[in-house]
Amino acid sequence: MSRIGVFGGMGPSATVDFMDKLVRLTPAGRDQDHLPVIVASLPHIHDRSRSILGVGPDPLPQLLLGIEFLNKSGVGVIAIPCNSSHHWYPQMCEHSAVPILHIAQACVAAIPQASAPKVAVFATRGALASGFYQSELAARGIEHMVPDAETGQALVDQCIRDIKAGQLEGGGKNLAAAFVLAKEQGATAVIMGCTEIPIAARYADSLGLELVDSSLELARASVEFALERGWNRPGWDS
Amino acid sequence: MSRIGVFGGMGPSATVDFMDKLVRLTPAGRDQDHLPVIVASLPHIHDRSRSILGVGPDPLPQLLLGIEFLNKSGVGVIAIPCNSSHHWYPQMCEHSAVPILHIAQACVAAIPQASAPKVAVFATRGALASGFYQSELAARGIEHMVPDAETGQALVDQCIRDIKAGQLEGGGKNLAAAFVLAKEQGATAVIMGCTEIPIAARYADSLGLELVDSSLELARASVEFALERGWNRPGWDS
Repeated sequence: MSRIGVFGGMGPSATVDFMDKLVRLTPAGRDQDHLPVIVASLPHIHDRSRSILGVGPDPLPQLLLGIEFLNKSGVGVIAIPCNSSHHWYPQMCEHSAVPILHIAQACVAAIPQASAPKVAVFATRGALASGFYQSELAARGIEHMVPDAETGQALVDQCIRDIKAGQLEGGGKNLAAAFVLAKEQGATAVIMGCTEIPIAARYADSLGLELVDSSLELARASVEFALERGWNRPGWDS
Repeated sequence: MSRIGVFGGMGPSATVDFMDKLVRLTPAGRDQDHLPVIVASLPHIHDRSRSILGVGPDPLPQLLLGIEFLNKSGVGVIAIPCNSSHHWYPQMCEHSAVPILHIAQACVAAIPQASAPKVAVFATRGALASGFYQSELAARGIEHMVPDAETGQALVDQCIRDIKAGQLEGGGKNLAAAFVLAKEQGATAVIMGCTEIPIAARYADSLGLELVDSSLELARASVEFALERGWNRPGWDS
């Protein structure tokens, strides 16, 4: 029970990026200082966004199998570096004996409220329809907006598809164009609320917008959870 | 049985690099085209090189627990992106119902024999003492050398320690100095026979030496194994 469980593959590059963040956030001078992690990268899970929008099959049974697998793998917490899948967060929690960290809660908690930002939420259409980012932001009294469906959101959609297909620079170009529109509409910050977006952001000018990286914040919450419990100290496998 | 099992954490950054290679080597236009992967990143395993050299505890019981875990996780093949651990390859294979790919075999098979290279093997002192690279190269009639213990090997050792401690540029600097010595000694190619070295190589001038990346070749062998068996097509979780 002293391992971080990562339910990944949604998508695979975002999972690699998340693991990289886990490693970088862990204070370590040698292998043995690091945290044990079990990753289930299961990319065949049905498209989360399409299902939320009512145009694709339900991924819930697959999501529950992944949660079940991690529960049997000696993990003490689960992180899911896929925002859209958090539409089914209550059902996954109910199915899990170990806590599941909520990516949007970790992400929104990282926004400095003092600066009174106007936050644009970049996410899949499914995640936006689900509304968990908007409700989390509203609960904290943070002013927010979503991209226009025809223009900004179309760019965000294409950016996500690009990264999932390994087209990193194409993804960066589309994201950069979405940043321009968000800035024109008065945004001062952008939540990168889809785990493909931070990968594209390496190739995009953020125009001074404050970027809040959902994947990074989930990684930070995961590492904190594990370090607080001493999982970096050799345990079963020492 | 249609998943790639990755036994990682030795070290953690090398595991992330290996997973990145798996994703990049898989022809995919969307999440669902990718390969399912289970990763056990267990960094607390005793230092492999120190054990081979007789100055550290035996990691074999821990290695066998990792192999056991992956065997119970529905994997059909196991890849271990840690060269030194292959000292215990026969014992791990004996303990595994599923095949384990051999990193040095995959790596040496990728050397173009036509070019008659003189290959320097960069690896931990433990892996060199174990001798599996040298015997693999000898079996294929490839001329090879290892760095001088006092100079070149000391640089390789420090490079590996640097990467394990997250010091990427320091690692690159030490690797670059080791490349200079290898070239002076007549090497035309270098086997990066420790999975930390390819990470350092991003920050080092290879001076025209042909670099053979053990981690990349293991990833290539893993993806080939999986694609041949159709694991990119939705299975249990479709």
